[in-house]
Amino acid sequence: QTRYVIIGGVAGGMSAATRLRRLDENARITVFERGDHVSFANCGLPYYLGSVIEERSSLLLQTPASLASRFALDVRVGTEVIGIDSAAKTVRVRDLSTGRESTEGYDALVLSPGASPVRPPLPGGERMLTLRNIDDVDAAMAALAAAPRSALVIGAGFIGLEMVENLAHRGLDVTLVELDDQVLPPLDPEMAGPVAERLRAAGVSVRLGIQVVELGADTATLSDGSVVAADFVLAAIGVRPDTALAKAAGLTIGDRGGIAVDDQLRTSDPHIYAIGDAVEKTDAISGEQRLVALAGLANRHGRMVADVITGRSIRVRPALGTAVVGMMGLTIAATGWNEKVLAARGRNIRVIHTHPASHAGYYPGAESMALKLVVDADTDAILGAQGVGGNGVDKRIDVIATAMAGGITASELADLELAYAPQFSSAKDPVNMLGYVALNAAEGLTPSVQWHELDAARAAGATLIDVRTAGEYAEAAVPGSVNIPLDDIRARQAELPEGRLIVHCKVGQRGHTAVRLLAQLGRDAVNLDGGYLTWAAGTD
Amino acid sequence: QTRYVIIGGVAGGMSAATRLRRLDENARITVFERGDHVSFANCGLPYYLGSVIEERSSLLLQTPASLASRFALDVRVGTEVIGIDSAAKTVRVRDLSTGRESTEGYDALVLSPGASPVRPPLPGGERMLTLRNIDDVDAAMAALAAAPRSALVIGAGFIGLEMVENLAHRGLDVTLVELDDQVLPPLDPEMAGPVAERLRAAGVSVRLGIQVVELGADTATLSDGSVVAADFVLAAIGVRPDTALAKAAGLTIGDRGGIAVDDQLRTSDPHIYAIGDAVEKTDAISGEQRLVALAGLANRHGRMVADVITGRSIRVRPALGTAVVGMMGLTIAATGWNEKVLAARGRNIRVIHTHPASHAGYYPGAESMALKLVVDADTDAILGAQGVGGNGVDKRIDVIATAMAGGITASELADLELAYAPQFSSAKDPVNMLGYVALNAAEGLTPSVQWHELDAARAAGATLIDVRTAGEYAEAAVPGSVNIPLDDIRARQAELPEGRLIVHCKVGQRGHTAVRLLAQLGRDAVNLDGGYLTWAAGTD
Ligand SMILES: Cc1cc2nc3c(=O)[nH]c(=O)nc-3n(C[C@H](O)[C@H](O)[C@H](O)COP(=O)(O)OP(=O)(O)OC[C@H]3O[C@@H](n4cnc5c(N)ncnc54)[C@H](O)[C@@H]3O)c2cc1C
Ligand SMILES: Cc1cc2nc3c(=O)[nH]c(=O)nc-3n(C[C@H](O)[C@H](O)[C@H](O)COP(=O)(O)OP(=O)(O)OC[C@H]3O[C@@H](n4cnc5c(N)ncnc54)[C@H](O)[C@@H]3O)c2cc1C
Ligand SMILES: CC(C)(COP(=O)(O)OP(=O)(O)OC[C@H]1O[C@@H](n2cnc3c(N)ncnc32)[C@H](O)[C@@H]1OP(=O)(O)O)[C@@H](O)C(=O)NCCC(=O)NCCS
Ligand SMILES: CC(C)(COP(=O)(O)OP(=O)(O)OC[C@H]1O[C@@H](n2cnc3c(N)ncnc32)[C@H](O)[C@@H]1OP(=O)(O)O)[C@@H](O)C(=O)NCCC(=O)NCCS
Repeated sequence: QTRYVIIGGVAGGMSAATRLRRLDENARITVFERGDHVSFANCGLPYYLGSVIEERSSLLLQTPASLASRFALDVRVGTEVIGIDSAAKTVRVRDLSTGRESTEGYDALVLSPGASPVRPPLPGGERMLTLRNIDDVDAAMAALAAAPRSALVIGAGFIGLEMVENLAHRGLDVTLVELDDQVLPPLDPEMAGPVAERLRAAGVSVRLGIQVVELGADTATLSDGSVVAADFVLAAIGVRPDTALAKAAGLTIGDRGGIAVDDQLRTSDPHIYAIGDAVEKTDAISGEQRLVALAGLANRHGRMVADVITGRSIRVRPALGTAVVGMMGLTIAATGWNEKVLAARGRNIRVIHTHPASHAGYYPGAESMALKLVVDADTDAILGAQGVGGNGVDKRIDVIATAMAGGITASELADLELAYAPQFSSAKDPVNMLGYVALNAAEGLTPSVQWHELDAARAAGATLIDVRTAGEYAEAAVPGSVNIPLDDIRARQAELPEGRLIVHCKVGQRGHTAVRLLAQLGRDAVNLDGGYLTWAAGTD
Repeated sequence: QTRYVIIGGVAGGMSAATRLRRLDENARITVFERGDHVSFANCGLPYYLGSVIEERSSLLLQTPASLASRFALDVRVGTEVIGIDSAAKTVRVRDLSTGRESTEGYDALVLSPGASPVRPPLPGGERMLTLRNIDDVDAAMAALAAAPRSALVIGAGFIGLEMVENLAHRGLDVTLVELDDQVLPPLDPEMAGPVAERLRAAGVSVRLGIQVVELGADTATLSDGSVVAADFVLAAIGVRPDTALAKAAGLTIGDRGGIAVDDQLRTSDPHIYAIGDAVEKTDAISGEQRLVALAGLANRHGRMVADVITGRSIRVRPALGTAVVGMMGLTIAATGWNEKVLAARGRNIRVIHTHPASHAGYYPGAESMALKLVVDADTDAILGAQGVGGNGVDKRIDVIATAMAGGITASELADLELAYAPQFSSAKDPVNMLGYVALNAAEGLTPSVQWHELDAARAAGATLIDVRTAGEYAEAAVPGSVNIPLDDIRARQAELPEGRLIVHCKVGQRGHTAVRLLAQLGRDAVNLDGGYLTWAAGTD
């Protein structure tokens, strides 16, 4: 009887186990899980804490019993694998309730141990909570049962923001502390700005570019000396691959700190495979190794590893890392790389910002969103996209991620046939519109400057022309800009100053028409990409 | 001065005009529109009738005045083009208010005359309304002002259903008559079944496979002799390309009745271009010519034709025809081809039905949907997809349409990295899941039969095993099926009858696991694709 042993019984591990059973009814399949639960919804934990998910049992998708009866799996919870003897092809396991140890042989071993939350080393930090599994959520629930009034969340990444939302939802006064000078570091700052604004509008104290240095009994001291109320403290500053076992077994660990695997998910030992958060992935944009802690990849690679083990020919695709978070009515999603990282590497990129409505403006209920597309200026390949807004942000990012997977270029987004009826989109879907803007940039029809390039361009002598209406200009404008509404440009040509003109409107669209007009009037004109909204989001 | 003349001032025509202006500031651009309005939201008309869109002005996106001041367009409403002299490169136009005629020369002429609603020739049919433009909506509004109690909608296509929803929303008793034996003929019957059910549940009288033969003063007689109340009557049985002018000018008309154009949108006359509903498109699946009356294509081709005319090199992509309609809380979307048409042509196809939730089941508010994927069995290419359900149907169809555009195969859908957080999706997004099922089919791991093949398969000796729970089986089951719950199969092997086994569960997922198990027990087993839900939707 072939023996498959799997370490870790959640996203990656259990997906491997169930698929293995569907492919091999005769094998002995054993899953070791050191926690008391398997197959739980990690991604639901913050919402259970916020009572959005009311029943703890909703988090538990399967149990050892249900997995035994359906898949004939031998699932051992409360059982830690404490060593791998790759020469003997055995694992050493310890029953955590009895302390009893035993040895189990394998023909193929799958590691899906996940990643542990990083705990910042802080004086007084013992009471700091983190969130990874059911025990963690039980501990956090117990802490919340003591009716804390204030909460401190350390780290403004995806899970940090989910925690802020849920703690605020419970009525706590929440402080969010982030070392970076923006929330959601995977986004570019002008995309993250409105997220911080939304948090502040909801009463969350958002402290950026600062660190927690010490925890008191019900307070926390920050690196600027300020003290904040912190009855409840949770850290969400990232995760570290759980590689202790792999290291001890002599498996190769990559430069990014994850278990190294090939495109068949095989580690440096031919009988040991690894998947999930513990493993380095090949990045789809750079081809480099990278850590991506996402449930979709863990599940998918879990299935794939079963296919490899049973002799099917598969090849893991490089990872884009598409992710989304919902927070206080905002949907925030991203795929691929952002501008700041690509710019830091000196890549020749083109950046596009738009602010479309989720659906046709003439149909009630449209919500606005900000979209950003980052494009390889040499090849027109899409390198990444970000979206922040209401309804439909997830749809647009999913479409772009799919386009990237299909090798569709930025300009070709213009041609996608996306479903349109007034409740769902516009005749030119926001994704199509990104394609149009990309086409205009690629063909040099409407050159643009970015919000962060504006000051330098003006210092070099360019004049900023605001082509919005006088009413819009009166409400709020970029200091020093000159207002000549788009519809007046032909008549008021004579008023245009000499030299380079940077035009802008609210979102970039009227600016585009203005640039086309000015260019044909013989002027050197560029569009402020994303218009006033992107500029304001970036500079606020 | 170059002279561009455009016939038709709405989706295609006005998109061409604005883009032409952005590309050529010096040209004279004249738009002739025989109606009194340009740039209106055709797609919003049904919702204005239902008072979902409250202001008539919301439908009018631009006016001749606004287009003159922004784009220096000469827009002549109430002006019909009555003839084209392609040798002289002139059009003959008639001012419809004065009857005065004149001649206008062009260097390039763009036809975007659209398509007219087909009016079934019925005795008494003069009072029958149709919906295409603002005049039509005004007429319908006037008819509704007379407070009709009953409405008859002829035609259960996308616009017909939108009208039914809006008339029901206004409180009318609605009868929907459709010649086909299903609603929404672009869908396959088992996908359309639940739509008809939803209509009936909302109190709409749905009459399928029947025709209206005569209209009385406030009734209609159907082909079976029955008489239905019909104070208000609207026909939405499709549109016919408006080709009178093109024909008279001697331009080539294609076999499908639309103006023939090449992949640069040029007609048989090198100076005349045509776009929009009036034009035949190349189908992306078959390569044949086809009529596709969709706003997205009209807008896009409007922009493209301006690029061609001004010397840019573009090439029109073949059309998929992605479409969506929202109706009574259902979202119904489709792209590419359906099963019935492909089957009728004898194509070797594979069909997949799933019934996923819009997002993770453990997070509140998930809505269920039915998805269908039609795959080329030889190449694994995606040929079409359909979705019916709540939230997120439009997203999945857009993702699949994008995958098709990118040449992603059905099996490769498994690898798409789609954004997952519990509010938005599942760790395996429904689109990924279609990919998994496609992979299992392609590899022969889990062969399936379709709902419409079940009777024949059973007649040939197969036994139907229902692997749902005893409770589910008791509630409703396929007549003659044997209930052996999935989790009991290993123990109750001996009870399985001889010969081929067809297994089924509610949606196909447990059936898949059952087939894998049975196959490894040495049995000839196939899965009923889509499970009980698809079977019930198809046979009801
Ligand atoms: C709060 C939270 C929210 C999240 N939200 C999202 C989201 O919205 N979207 C998204 O895509 N991803 C999200 N994730 C990430 C996602 O849950 C992970 O990517 C995924 O669970 C990784 O799967 P895995 O199998 O690698 O690890 P895990 O699912 O963490 O499973 C690893 C298991 O291995 C066990 N284990 C480790 N070592 C041993 C050992 N030596 N012996 C026995 N057992 C061992 C651990 O106890 C653990 O249970 C979230 C994660 C958390 C914690
Ligand atoms: C009620 C309704 C709902 C719809 N809903 C959707 C939807 O949800 N999604 C979707 O994608 N599509 C939808 N459509 C279809 C969409 O509106 C059309 O595909 C699109 O408008 C076609 O653009 P066009 O430029 O070809 O024609 P049109 O927009 O119809 O414009 C053609 C214009 O040309 C004028 N014209 C014709 N001949 C002459 C002449 N000789 N001289 C002067 N003027 C002339 C006509 O008066 C007309 O105004 C809907 C259509 C209708 C009627
Ligand atoms: C649920 C879990 C045990 C895996 O079980 P599973 O049976 O492999 O997976 P699912 O229930 O998702 O079902 C997927 C299978 O059903 C099949 N399937 C789904 N719908 C189907 C349908 N309508 N018809 C036929 N087959 C279908 C798929 O093809 C797939 O089978 P395959 O892998 O053999 O191709 C494991 O993923 C898990 O423990 N998840 C919870 C933890 C987690 O993921 N956490 C992170 C996110 S919160
Ligand atoms: C609206 C209409 C007049 C066309 O006007 P338009 O200015 O060409 O189109 P839009 O307002 O959609 O704007 C699109 C332009 O803005 C540009 N744009 C959009 N957002 C932008 C941004 N943020 N930054 C820069 N440029 C942007 C696009 O690139 C495009 O310009 P291009 O064609 O030169 O590439 C025409 O489509 C119409 O009449 N529509 C109504 C009728 C209709 O479509 N009915 C059917 C559907 S209900």
